[in-house]
Amino acid sequence: MLKKFTLNTPAEDFINITSSVKKTLRESNIQEGLCVVHCPHTTAGITINENADPDVVTDMLLGLREAYPDRAQFRHFEGNSTAHLKASTMGNSATIPIHKGNLVLGVWQGIYFCEFDGPRNRTYYVSITSE
Amino acid sequence: MLKKFTLNTPAEDFINITSSVKKTLRESNIQEGLCVVHCPHTTAGITINENADPDVVTDMLLGLREAYPDRAQFRHFEGNSTAHLKASTMGNSATIPIHKGNLVLGVWQGIYFCEFDGPRNRTYYVSITSE
Amino acid sequence: MLKKFTLNTPAEDFINITSSVKKTLRESNIQEGLCVVHCPHTTAGITINENADPDVVTDMLLGLREAYPDRAQFRHFEGNSTAHLKASTMGNSATIPIHKGNLVLGVWQGIYFCEFDGPRNRTYYVSITSE
Repeated sequence: MLKKFTLNTPAEDFINITSSVKKTLRESNIQEGLCVVHCPHTTAGITINENADPDVVTDMLLGLREAYPDRAQFRHFEGNSTAHLKASTMGNSATIPIHKGNLVLGVWQGIYFCEFDGPRNRTYYVSITSE
Repeated sequence: MLKKFTLNTPAEDFINITSSVKKTLRESNIQEGLCVVHCPHTTAGITINENADPDVVTDMLLGLREAYPDRAQFRHFEGNSTAHLKASTMGNSATIPIHKGNLVLGVWQGIYFCEFDGPRNRTYYVSITSE
Repeated sequence: MLKKFTLNTPAEDFINITSSVKKTLRESNIQEGLCVVHCPHTTAGITINENADPDVVTDMLLGLREAYPDRAQFRHFEGNSTAHLKASTMGNSATIPIHKGNLVLGVWQGIYFCEFDGPRNRTYYVSITSE
């Protein structure tokens, strides 16, 4: 089962999409298997991280900007190579086991759509595969 | 099939958990499919890297500390934002194909639980999905 | 279904392997499920990123070299710890949902084998799992 979602993003943010993933799993009625959340873009990604203190997202965006600053030597004509680097570092998908009809997520884990080159209209997919 | 494991970690380390993953696969009797190793924490992750020279882990921990140093501007009250960054960079899971009842791992590949904010009692899951 | 591929790599490059993955999916006749592309090496990885402007790959390789420079303190005797760091950052596999017999890839997304310590003869695997 595959379901497509859309969202509008700001310039840069991690957007918590956990509830849409959980809802898709409930609709599937699948009890055991794998859930894959997939981003079809190249300047955005998917990660799993803390869902409690929003300062974690702020700090992660800062840490990624410092690790991958814009560079005068970059040649890509769109000028967003740092966004491509951040997207591949976070990864284009997250895989979560399903057990007894629930995502096997820790209590502090949320699933995030990571925008690095917005604002844009974006898409993501939730795939549910039975064991 | 899903199996839960616990481990005690030091402050920072990559702990080789390959043997527990292989044992879980043998117990499942599954011959073809996917193995997912999943970490339910937000300051620890899972990666696959060299299993031979332990200096590789030491160097990777150093390289990650330099890429994501602690910063005065970080706002998260727990003071462990660098651990959150490292966890998302390594990723919260690893996916390995299963073929003829074995993990499709290279000879130098080991599966590691990556602790970035220990010491703690930690958990990880091994999920085996048949083709 | 699991298929093995080999390739010869230069010192450092992202090599677009999308067509081999699509061909494997067509041969499998699987309509719904998951495709996993897996790298069995520890100084190479798999990522999904832009397939249009080759300058993106050039810039990403530069950004990764700057984020993970070689360091005098590194102890691994092979001297390629930066390649191990880059491999784990990109990840050893990519997972792509399959829908109606096609990979759910964005129009700008290509699947890349990431060489960080070549030239070498390398291997990768394409695993197709039915829903």
